[in-house]
Amino acid sequence: MRWWGWGDPAHAPLLTPSALSFLADTVGVAARPRPPVALGEVRLPRSTLSEQSLAAMRAMVGAYNVRDDHFERVIHAAGKGYPDLVRLRAGDPQGAPDAVVMPRGHEELRGVLELCERMSVAVVPFGGGTSVVGGLAPLRGEHRSVIALDTRHMDRLLGLDRDSLTVAVQAGMRAPALERQLAPRGLTLGHFPQSFQYVSLGGCAATRSAGQASSGYGSIEKMILGLRLVAPRGDVELPAVPATAAGPGLRQLLVGSEGAFGVIGELSLRVRPAPRERFYDGYFFTDFAAGVEGLRSLSQQHALPEVARLSDEQETRMSLALAGSGGVKGTVGRAYLGARGYGRGCLAVLGFEGAPGEAAARRKRALALLRAGGALSVGRSPAHAWLRSRFSGPYLRDELLTQGVMVETLETATQWSNVTRLHRQVGEAISSSLSACGTPALVMCHVSHLYESGASLYFTFLALQRAYDAIGQWQAVKDAASRAITAGGGTITHHHGIGRDHARWPSGERRGP
Amino acid sequence: MRWWGWGDPAHAPLLTPSALSFLADTVGVAARPRPPVALGEVRLPRSTLSEQSLAAMRAMVGAYNVRDDHFERVIHAAGKGYPDLVRLRAGDPQGAPDAVVMPRGHEELRGVLELCERMSVAVVPFGGGTSVVGGLAPLRGEHRSVIALDTRHMDRLLGLDRDSLTVAVQAGMRAPALERQLAPRGLTLGHFPQSFQYVSLGGCAATRSAGQASSGYGSIEKMILGLRLVAPRGDVELPAVPATAAGPGLRQLLVGSEGAFGVIGELSLRVRPAPRERFYDGYFFTDFAAGVEGLRSLSQQHALPEVARLSDEQETRMSLALAGSGGVKGTVGRAYLGARGYGRGCLAVLGFEGAPGEAAARRKRALALLRAGGALSVGRSPAHAWLRSRFSGPYLRDELLTQGVMVETLETATQWSNVTRLHRQVGEAISSSLSACGTPALVMCHVSHLYESGASLYFTFLALQRAYDAIGQWQAVKDAASRAITAGGGTITHHHGIGRDHARWPSGERRGP
Repeated sequence: MRWWGWGDPAHAPLLTPSALSFLADTVGVAARPRPPVALGEVRLPRSTLSEQSLAAMRAMVGAYNVRDDHFERVIHAAGKGYPDLVRLRAGDPQGAPDAVVMPRGHEELRGVLELCERMSVAVVPFGGGTSVVGGLAPLRGEHRSVIALDTRHMDRLLGLDRDSLTVAVQAGMRAPALERQLAPRGLTLGHFPQSFQYVSLGGCAATRSAGQASSGYGSIEKMILGLRLVAPRGDVELPAVPATAAGPGLRQLLVGSEGAFGVIGELSLRVRPAPRERFYDGYFFTDFAAGVEGLRSLSQQHALPEVARLSDEQETRMSLALAGSGGVKGTVGRAYLGARGYGRGCLAVLGFEGAPGEAAARRKRALALLRAGGALSVGRSPAHAWLRSRFSGPYLRDELLTQGVMVETLETATQWSNVTRLHRQVGEAISSSLSACGTPALVMCHVSHLYESGASLYFTFLALQRAYDAIGQWQAVKDAASRAITAGGGTITHHHGIGRDHARWPSGERRGP
Repeated sequence: MRWWGWGDPAHAPLLTPSALSFLADTVGVAARPRPPVALGEVRLPRSTLSEQSLAAMRAMVGAYNVRDDHFERVIHAAGKGYPDLVRLRAGDPQGAPDAVVMPRGHEELRGVLELCERMSVAVVPFGGGTSVVGGLAPLRGEHRSVIALDTRHMDRLLGLDRDSLTVAVQAGMRAPALERQLAPRGLTLGHFPQSFQYVSLGGCAATRSAGQASSGYGSIEKMILGLRLVAPRGDVELPAVPATAAGPGLRQLLVGSEGAFGVIGELSLRVRPAPRERFYDGYFFTDFAAGVEGLRSLSQQHALPEVARLSDEQETRMSLALAGSGGVKGTVGRAYLGARGYGRGCLAVLGFEGAPGEAAARRKRALALLRAGGALSVGRSPAHAWLRSRFSGPYLRDELLTQGVMVETLETATQWSNVTRLHRQVGEAISSSLSACGTPALVMCHVSHLYESGASLYFTFLALQRAYDAIGQWQAVKDAASRAITAGGGTITHHHGIGRDHARWPSGERRGP
């Protein structure tokens, strides 16, 4: 993983000249590229851990698994949120862990936590390192020091119960590693967030992650049957059960707890038969409200696809304009759409996956419901374009940052009756804030996680970066959007988690003494 | 509701002479009927509440809504568990609330709790009064007095969001009252526990109730989108959201909390379009293991019915023997089954409900899967017999108690890989315990709630009541079954809740410091 951005350093560029020129014409780009500083130029505070403390940790997990070199401290200094990247690229992260500690199993994990408690060292659990909400900020609070507790060596499959479609894993296992273990057995977890290629399963659990196929497979909270939380005073073990009425739901209390109660060390997860048929298709609606109604009908009439994404008008236009840069392939002609009254319409991508015949039957039923709601079927090509680029957003963001373009995402969820209103209110808040900054924005949104009672809204916005105050610009728009979400009855986060960025916002959705 | 038993006093008797004679031949019946004592003979301790305390409560909720008369104290002295009924019928409940207090809304509810905190009065929330696990025991702990907080007047529909299929209700609303409000709007909650006719929705939430149609509609925990907990120090308000990643899951922490944190005052619940087509059919499997495999295939292959019940061999035999007493109608002939190799087989009832065409299509697919697994279709009659008698078990229990027959139920859930083993182990534990008492039992079981990773097991057992020590006999078999469940990897309760009966058992499924 690039220390200053996303993913494989060898990944080919995505930003085409035509897309860049489109951006130059709309939001503007920097006069010249702004690459990240060299790794050596990144300024870190001196480690506050004593040699004695480091020695105690090395005795616990092995010398090679306690690291305080420049590279490891930099790569563990932040997640992959926009402000994280702005700061890293400038060589100026907000602090860094004093050391990175990598336990190799449950006993070592507990040992490290006990040690840190005795030595007054704060612990930030670190899985895939992909948080976009400041969840990996190396905050030490009242403690003298802080470590990143990297779970990378806790990556084993602990068990597979074929009959019960249940696996037990160590929490540091990455999502692709689990899929590689499951595939030869004809199974899948079905959890594919945009960060899929890097996320750890423990991190997904700790942050209530939802994958792109959550409408069918459910978000991580639906997959977790049991877990083991490791804390300095001992473990909390909640074995896998299909269901229980034995008191308050502790499993769901620990899911989403983001390290507040301890570190998730092991997980029992529901898996499913791997799909043997897949149908991904594109549909057009005359406008966003019509698309929302279409998705609502699927959600409430037992006709949910595994993947459902509805772009609003702006995102649809952008996808067509940026075709080739991770957008929609150009086979959906504007003329074709215009002639049918969908010229200013919205694109939806629906994916049905399942057993032979079964997925096809659900697709057929959904198609009938959608057509009755005025949807136009536009074939596989836009859906397959989305499939090809489904994990490439973070790569594109790095290239945009180099061009001086701010790109940020944020998300919420609300009841169906409130989806279009909240969409408008949050979109306007983002637009107004960035216009007030003198950097008018492109604001777009999609619905991508469906429930019987409501859906998520996922906003992406681009604007010219205010080079001398990129963080202030970001904080202003983030605050404006968060206020609009909270005032408008949405949750402050549907699947990114709380982290540092949302820590002062959720009070609106859980009033208490 | 009868103070000494279940339901409407005018309900017609269910126990036919032939069923009684079958019981006399198998487990034995008492030499002469043992009716409950007269209401006036029920012995209650004197109320420990001072006139001053009663006056304060009356000032809060109105004089008529604070009751300390004999009848109200008796009817609030216990739930409807077997030991509750044994004690009530003998006129000797284990204490009683010192008063019954019935707040008329949220402000009064909070006022009563504040008052009780100031006056050191324990509070037992009381909804429908149907707990079968001692959940209504008037325990006062360290407090001088205890009241039953009856939510019967908190029974209003607070809101309906048609687009989002969400209703808001006061927690004292009864399940049938909500269904009556929803039916004219073409909606249903779909929560039908055996206690449906009496349960309050707040009580269902507080005890993690699961209804007979939970395989399709989900248990109550899946229906709860938001709730308001009222506690002496203030409220915890969790508004309805379709999903959120904003930290630990507090909704699921409060669901199942059985009054430990406060009283659930309001609920937001997901509702669904009322089914417009219903198909209920019977199937035979050659044995229980084959039936379990059949249900597992439905659960794991996207083919779940709304209702799925599989009786084991003993329950199937009993249903056929007791036809007319709430069992299966006699149209499924033994000769017909025997000739096809299902003579010692197991009956399953599957119910598909939904939109026109939709339910039929799912049923067709399920049928193909079941037939491939060796199931024999035996038509609608046994399924419709079950539908007619689905709420009558507790009535029959009262009649059996009068005949000196102990009848008790208990339940668990476990992974599919463990279902048949746990079924055998718990069944043997129940049998052995009652044999050791000198009262050999009829033990039967069904699977009735399906999940992708496992299923519930619901045991019913009958034995001659040991008249001089009915409670000791019950405690011995309850302990034996609970030990077998815990040792065998099941949850101590799938949907009855913890109450007093299970309070010392769950430690096995949540190990912690």
